[in-house]
Amino acid sequence: MKINPNIAPFAILEAAKRISPFINRTPVLTSHTLNRLFNAQLFLKCENFQKVGAFKARGASNAVLSLDKSKLVNGVATHSSGNHAQALSWAASLVNSKAFIVMPSNSSKIKVAAVKDYGGIITFCEPTLAARETTLARILDQTDATEIHPYNNESIIAGQATAALEFIEEIGELDMIIAPVGGGGLLGGTSLSVHYFLPGGRTVGAEPEQANDAFLSFTNRKFIPSVNPDTIADGLRTSLGYITFPIILGHVHSIVTVSEESIVKAMRYLWERMKIMVEPSSAVPVAALMENKLDVAGKRVGIIISGGNVDLDDLPWMKNG
Amino acid sequence: MKINPNIAPFAILEAAKRISPFINRTPVLTSHTLNRLFNAQLFLKCENFQKVGAFKARGASNAVLSLDKSKLVNGVATHSSGNHAQALSWAASLVNSKAFIVMPSNSSKIKVAAVKDYGGIITFCEPTLAARETTLARILDQTDATEIHPYNNESIIAGQATAALEFIEEIGELDMIIAPVGGGGLLGGTSLSVHYFLPGGRTVGAEPEQANDAFLSFTNRKFIPSVNPDTIADGLRTSLGYITFPIILGHVHSIVTVSEESIVKAMRYLWERMKIMVEPSSAVPVAALMENKLDVAGKRVGIIISGGNVDLDDLPWMKNG
Repeated sequence: MKINPNIAPFAILEAAKRISPFINRTPVLTSHTLNRLFNAQLFLKCENFQKVGAFKARGASNAVLSLDKSKLVNGVATHSSGNHAQALSWAASLVNSKAFIVMPSNSSKIKVAAVKDYGGIITFCEPTLAARETTLARILDQTDATEIHPYNNESIIAGQATAALEFIEEIGELDMIIAPVGGGGLLGGTSLSVHYFLPGGRTVGAEPEQANDAFLSFTNRKFIPSVNPDTIADGLRTSLGYITFPIILGHVHSIVTVSEESIVKAMRYLWERMKIMVEPSSAVPVAALMENKLDVAGKRVGIIISGGNVDLDDLPWMKNG
Repeated sequence: MKINPNIAPFAILEAAKRISPFINRTPVLTSHTLNRLFNAQLFLKCENFQKVGAFKARGASNAVLSLDKSKLVNGVATHSSGNHAQALSWAASLVNSKAFIVMPSNSSKIKVAAVKDYGGIITFCEPTLAARETTLARILDQTDATEIHPYNNESIIAGQATAALEFIEEIGELDMIIAPVGGGGLLGGTSLSVHYFLPGGRTVGAEPEQANDAFLSFTNRKFIPSVNPDTIADGLRTSLGYITFPIILGHVHSIVTVSEESIVKAMRYLWERMKIMVEPSSAVPVAALMENKLDVAGKRVGIIISGGNVDLDDLPWMKNG
């Protein structure tokens, strides 16, 4: 695979340097209970403690800080109902730029409030992909803002890759790093950092069974989009992109899927035992361990805890209880 | 004040050394959002990430590891419905000793299960202080176990003091350290470490208004017991002890009280913004800042987050919502 200079080792190291004044160097937590449970040495890179509560701050800040000043005048734009919307709003505010965010009209109040809090300028639209895309096209046309796609963007991928870079710098030898996969920005970036900076290490993706497009695409080596994904892991409902998919094909060792039940169980386990708030998407790699989907016995296993944005009034065990 | 050798600087340093193979060196977290809110530099020593989910692991392990082997044969005992019960059970298991735990019959299922999990041998009693004390006396008589009081015990106090010791070692200059106060083991121990190892630093206690016995005792310089304390901060309902009270009188700068509403608000704020699970007792110092009870502007303020043991099926905002 030919190395794309925008996501080459140097680009990831540059991204890390570029965003370091703004992001948190997140802690790596360990737990004897967890290690005993899985007979492995687990390391949790806690991106739930990242700015805006998710790894998305890395990619968004790298993308915004990489733009020419001439472009920043007109701002940046995206459509997102999730963490990328907050991350891009936050990143734009760092350089006194504007973030135009297209959000579906059924977005949760909490997420809308968070985007506003970070200074994002919201345009609501019908809750369909078509409406999101046409509304964003209109906004881009009206404002001349630069679109920053949540994952299918090389600066975003290089930014997300810095989580694994820090992880490897801090912990050293890891046999594998497991990351959840939605659009593939985090998993793709992680696989690049592992490829470049952790020789011999493996990157593994973990995905909900009920949104298993990455698993199917990876297994069939052919892009298969996500159709009506119905998973509690709201960060993982999107399909891979034409930039992230080849990276994943080239550098990811395997992708495993997990049930909804395991996701909720793993999420609650992390809350109760580790005392950290993680969102459902973050629990997917631990769910994979709980389902014995990966041979981790005796290994040093890194897990990227992707984020911690949940609605405390609407926890999954309240519904299932 | 004459220095008691059991809680002298050397005793605290020895305790730290004694327990270090068994406890977690807990991380210190910071948050720009929190700093901005209070116009101060806040440092959170996260004892919710401690063994058994609370600082109590420090005192209990120090107390158990300080006992003669001849005493360990008969085990240790206490009455407790809270974190000390778990901590003592865990500590006894470290040295293959036994922990006899007297628990009121109305203790939460979760806490009973946790004590059993750590190997504690439970005797249930009526939920009154008198029944707890007479039952414990009977157990002590039957087993020849050594009583380990949850706070009115010098080894326990020296153990709890190690949290502040680590805190000071790691962060260096702090203008003050705020700790919640129940029986005074944590606050007393903290005040000793500040006195010995942080010259010029202040120790401040934070307490629920609805369990303000420490505030009253401190203000009146006379022991006033807790009477029918009705606070969500279940770790802080106990009265001071005859050992902890003089330490607090001698070394604590001030004690402030907070409303129940502020405790829940601060707890939820810590969950949402810091992505850490803290129990109500842990939120009391932050509640004091929210109520503007302390002049922290421009200061470097350490806060001891005492624990993270909560029932995820019974969160306070579920009731209040």
